[in-house]
Amino acid sequence: MKKKVAIIGVTGSVGQEFVVSLNNHPWFEIVQIAASNKSAGKKYLESIKDAGSGIINWHPASPIPEYVKDMTVDKVEDIKIDNIDLVFSSIESEAAREIESKFAKFVPVISTSSAYRYDEDVPILIPGINDEHVDLIDVQKKNRNWNGFVAPIPNCTTTGLAITLKPLYEQFGTNKVIMTSMQAISGAGRTPGVPAMDITDNIIPYIPNEEKKVRIETAKILGKINEGKINNANIKISCTCTRVPVIDGHTESVSIETSKPIDPTLVKKSYEEYFNDLNILSLPSAPPKYYEIHDEPTRPQPRIDREINDGMTTSIGRLEKEIIFDHGIKYVLFSHNKKMGSAKGAILLAELLYKKGKI
Amino acid sequence: MKKKVAIIGVTGSVGQEFVVSLNNHPWFEIVQIAASNKSAGKKYLESIKDAGSGIINWHPASPIPEYVKDMTVDKVEDIKIDNIDLVFSSIESEAAREIESKFAKFVPVISTSSAYRYDEDVPILIPGINDEHVDLIDVQKKNRNWNGFVAPIPNCTTTGLAITLKPLYEQFGTNKVIMTSMQAISGAGRTPGVPAMDITDNIIPYIPNEEKKVRIETAKILGKINEGKINNANIKISCTCTRVPVIDGHTESVSIETSKPIDPTLVKKSYEEYFNDLNILSLPSAPPKYYEIHDEPTRPQPRIDREINDGMTTSIGRLEKEIIFDHGIKYVLFSHNKKMGSAKGAILLAELLYKKGKI
Amino acid sequence: MKKKVAIIGVTGSVGQEFVVSLNNHPWFEIVQIAASNKSAGKKYLESIKDAGSGIINWHPASPIPEYVKDMTVDKVEDIKIDNIDLVFSSIESEAAREIESKFAKFVPVISTSSAYRYDEDVPILIPGINDEHVDLIDVQKKNRNWNGFVAPIPNCTTTGLAITLKPLYEQFGTNKVIMTSMQAISGAGRTPGVPAMDITDNIIPYIPNEEKKVRIETAKILGKINEGKINNANIKISCTCTRVPVIDGHTESVSIETSKPIDPTLVKKSYEEYFNDLNILSLPSAPPKYYEIHDEPTRPQPRIDREINDGMTTSIGRLEKEIIFDHGIKYVLFSHNKKMGSAKGAILLAELLYKKGKI
Amino acid sequence: MKKKVAIIGVTGSVGQEFVVSLNNHPWFEIVQIAASNKSAGKKYLESIKDAGSGIINWHPASPIPEYVKDMTVDKVEDIKIDNIDLVFSSIESEAAREIESKFAKFVPVISTSSAYRYDEDVPILIPGINDEHVDLIDVQKKNRNWNGFVAPIPNCTTTGLAITLKPLYEQFGTNKVIMTSMQAISGAGRTPGVPAMDITDNIIPYIPNEEKKVRIETAKILGKINEGKINNANIKISCTCTRVPVIDGHTESVSIETSKPIDPTLVKKSYEEYFNDLNILSLPSAPPKYYEIHDEPTRPQPRIDREINDGMTTSIGRLEKEIIFDHGIKYVLFSHNKKMGSAKGAILLAELLYKKGKI
Repeated sequence: MKKKVAIIGVTGSVGQEFVVSLNNHPWFEIVQIAASNKSAGKKYLESIKDAGSGIINWHPASPIPEYVKDMTVDKVEDIKIDNIDLVFSSIESEAAREIESKFAKFVPVISTSSAYRYDEDVPILIPGINDEHVDLIDVQKKNRNWNGFVAPIPNCTTTGLAITLKPLYEQFGTNKVIMTSMQAISGAGRTPGVPAMDITDNIIPYIPNEEKKVRIETAKILGKINEGKINNANIKISCTCTRVPVIDGHTESVSIETSKPIDPTLVKKSYEEYFNDLNILSLPSAPPKYYEIHDEPTRPQPRIDREINDGMTTSIGRLEKEIIFDHGIKYVLFSHNKKMGSAKGAILLAELLYKKGKI
Repeated sequence: MKKKVAIIGVTGSVGQEFVVSLNNHPWFEIVQIAASNKSAGKKYLESIKDAGSGIINWHPASPIPEYVKDMTVDKVEDIKIDNIDLVFSSIESEAAREIESKFAKFVPVISTSSAYRYDEDVPILIPGINDEHVDLIDVQKKNRNWNGFVAPIPNCTTTGLAITLKPLYEQFGTNKVIMTSMQAISGAGRTPGVPAMDITDNIIPYIPNEEKKVRIETAKILGKINEGKINNANIKISCTCTRVPVIDGHTESVSIETSKPIDPTLVKKSYEEYFNDLNILSLPSAPPKYYEIHDEPTRPQPRIDREINDGMTTSIGRLEKEIIFDHGIKYVLFSHNKKMGSAKGAILLAELLYKKGKI
Repeated sequence: MKKKVAIIGVTGSVGQEFVVSLNNHPWFEIVQIAASNKSAGKKYLESIKDAGSGIINWHPASPIPEYVKDMTVDKVEDIKIDNIDLVFSSIESEAAREIESKFAKFVPVISTSSAYRYDEDVPILIPGINDEHVDLIDVQKKNRNWNGFVAPIPNCTTTGLAITLKPLYEQFGTNKVIMTSMQAISGAGRTPGVPAMDITDNIIPYIPNEEKKVRIETAKILGKINEGKINNANIKISCTCTRVPVIDGHTESVSIETSKPIDPTLVKKSYEEYFNDLNILSLPSAPPKYYEIHDEPTRPQPRIDREINDGMTTSIGRLEKEIIFDHGIKYVLFSHNKKMGSAKGAILLAELLYKKGKI
Repeated sequence: MKKKVAIIGVTGSVGQEFVVSLNNHPWFEIVQIAASNKSAGKKYLESIKDAGSGIINWHPASPIPEYVKDMTVDKVEDIKIDNIDLVFSSIESEAAREIESKFAKFVPVISTSSAYRYDEDVPILIPGINDEHVDLIDVQKKNRNWNGFVAPIPNCTTTGLAITLKPLYEQFGTNKVIMTSMQAISGAGRTPGVPAMDITDNIIPYIPNEEKKVRIETAKILGKINEGKINNANIKISCTCTRVPVIDGHTESVSIETSKPIDPTLVKKSYEEYFNDLNILSLPSAPPKYYEIHDEPTRPQPRIDREINDGMTTSIGRLEKEIIFDHGIKYVLFSHNKKMGSAKGAILLAELLYKKGKI
């Protein structure tokens, strides 16, 4: 018996990725889909069709699964809570807080929205990176008197940074992080998203709120849970987030100061030890390899590395000592913002929570 | 009477910019042009025409000046040294060292090549930034028993960094610099330059030798000259140079540690004091403003800011305190690699040297 | 005494081009600017500032003229009709019909909108191409009992086609036209315009309504006026309009069948005779050359040819006999959709009408 | 027992696609690989590594098959003719003529080069489109006294055009074709290929020799074989080939005149009848569907449609009556230049020839 899933915000760009990534899922099956009132009552295929032009606004590379085309899009309030085991939410953040709480009273809600990320009793989870934070879910349920809970994934720019920092933070101590991101246009969604007029042959050196999110979320994810509370990691994180003319996948140039001596060989060893026996690697949506280190200096590259393991592997290159710190390392990472950093990452999280008996 | 100028490497991308930027110059006139043996003997227009397709390989936005079209391209060895006052050289670095020295025995050579940049008695000059290093030219002439000299401009990625660091280094002390660049494809030249297959929808996180150049050149430019020697600035500079799908202009994300307290207001005041009475601003190729600070967080942007003052102004934005250092500042700069960072910057340097009686 | 001008729709992309192109205009001065109620009451600079991010949404390459920054944006209904001689309108087509007629009762309205283009008593004017259609303005005024009138320019894709067809139609007879366009993203405006997600590394082979507009407008522009009526040209026009990843400027691949024998040499002669003594070439916004024929097969190219004469020159290349017709010619044209095909073309039209005493 | 295959030109862009598409092939196995003397003697992985930078110049999306990495690249003259059953050749056209003939004396040569395409006794083959031309191979062998033969595929721009024309030509008669192509940058190869400086934000309206190839090849492919000779189809074909900033896949805007009445419904029926029982659809490299007609007007689009069936399906959209002809139809087609139009198309051809006992 598969767990019954509802998707909220199913017509949007992330919602569509949920539809694709849940197709033929061994543990989860979509039983209800919901979106804004504008779409409600229509068949899914109709709901993503532009009324004027008849154009189907479907964004993923894979086609719409046949059985979904004919599913009716419901209003959010028409989701039959008794009939579902789990909600995937990708609604816009302003509305998210209220809507997600309505469901969390009864069932688990896995969310790509930032609505609850900064609440004390809400963990921001990346499978394999801070699994012990799952314990905070029980605190949350108790605090709020909920039968379900809200479990958000981080912002897509945080994901790759937190993944690559984790083993180093644990083993070498990480005091300072400076990061410059070169983020893909798909990170801004598609309706309307980034206008082509703004980004063609151009860089926009600013993404509203992004830098703050990365700073707060990274420190929380790397934090330790203690007596039902997360103590944020004591790292200073500085970041500059830019938008570049790349379709999918975020590239980040990272420099870190560590407490202990570090060099590329030590990093490789550290990653190997940390990642190679991650037990999350047996989850259905997990990639065969969680990370990939490239010695070739021209990697990672978005157009090549976004394809690896369906976007679930974090790629690392340009590993070098960071000369401005007594102990430090610098590298360039690549993380797929629409896959590991979004819907498919959220499904991986659901799989983890399922394994842990939380769903 | 204008100074008589020869251009070496006149058929290449930088050579073409020399031709454009010297058109109707008040002090300099092109009297001879030279390139590789393959081009020698042809009219200029013919020399840049593709033999097979008949296509004119002319890259600048402005058209070829009429009088240049019919000039004959000479072999480098056929340049009549007695008839010229000054050489602009943009030849490939391997050949540059030998060729430039042949001319420097007799006349000043202003070069965009890196051939001599790292020699002890050769200054790397940016007008307004390290004019006192001009004194090294006399040392060079004496050392080498030359009547002329070689005066190179820096690598195009160094230019914007050194310009924006200079006032801060002087006033606040600068100990550490971390920089990530997002460099334009035009920086790699055009024959063949960056293949469209490699850079479309992509980032290449590596540019051979670039990072080393930026580190060494910046420290030298910010250094102090003392008894005929430059003592390099005592700064640790770390950089990661990437190529992005932008046609012209380099963007750099910069974080610096300073000795003294610093904040955006202090930076603005410092720049104002430093730049506003630069006497180089009266030179023919100097922009009306040497720098521009943007409060709007989305600036600088390559497509907008590259047009300002014909690419001779350095643009700065995203000024913020750098939180990872006790005292520090971070910003994003934009510098036009084909203008201030290349031929037109070299002409500005020639103008400075002319004013100072070195030409 | 300059003519007093109001701009309606001044905050949009075309409105901004009006502001730029009317700066220091010898005959026209902006005295009032209007936009939607959302903008009304604000200073111009404020009206184009994004409320959330503080970003200035200014699109032209040239900066905002200082005097305009502080002008107050009025509601459309607050324009003081007594104080103005002329209206430039760039409002969205649905609202345009009603709003433009309100003004046309009193003063001339030059419009970039399609609202009136297909009315029998409204000419679609391109200076130098169908100046005799100006006579229809008197018919229009009489018909509608207006003191002013509406004079629209054509769709930006029609402009280059009609200009290049006109001399050939007159001299050789043109029966059939097949055209495939490759249109710039700026043609779709910027708020939101074409999403970068849709057009990066892509072609969209369809632009709603565009093909119909080109067919109807071209036949009308080439038509003859007779007894106060335009008889559309008897040409079959087939077109396929596509969107390509180019920022500015439309490229069109054109094949035509003519009644009489034709070849590239005859076309060149025909163009020379037709265009070289156009009296509109003395108007302030007219380019020094109305067209440019390239023998080099790689021209026209958007990135090079959009800069020529500030976008007011139509470029033509690849001139060859069209082999599928008994008599025919084929060519590729380039026309700047934001300049000759938009605001600056509308100003050129206003200049023509001023010269002819209609304004 | 699989047929033993040698690949000539294995280091180039097309050669690499051969390697990928022959991986785990049920009928063919790579036993020898050859390239220019520069590469000869090296392991394959070394042969595609840039000597200076150490960068691996591997272009396909799929990784290099492990067993190929260690294969030694031989000189062309060192291929052991006795040990192979078949040669795939993707060498540059100038050398191709001589080299391919050396092999064709002994074994079949399937070629992507144009060297032999225009010889009278050489068919240009597209499986399913002109299979009866396979008979010309026997004529060729007899004429030239060869044990093997040369069988070239067409130019990548011809492929989609010939495929979409074939059923219409047979059923409705096709007299005239006008085509404008918008071709991907990958069509020009990668070393150096199209410089990013030339094609970013640009269109180049000319591809040397391309238009002539399309005209001649299309007429030959649609021709009838009679008594060992192909009588070219009696069609006038006019084309304009342009390069656009798209990575992979050629888009073509096509208008045709037919002898008999035609409309979109008739076209769909005609395609269905023609393609749906093609017996080539059972070949290993054949797609499940040979063509796809889109009713949605925004299709085909390169970024979406290039992924369908690994690039082996031709996509068609914008089907409409062509109004300039008495009887005619217009459409936009998309064909993957690196898949169906190149190496994988050549392998499909080899599979057909194998089935027909020619290999």
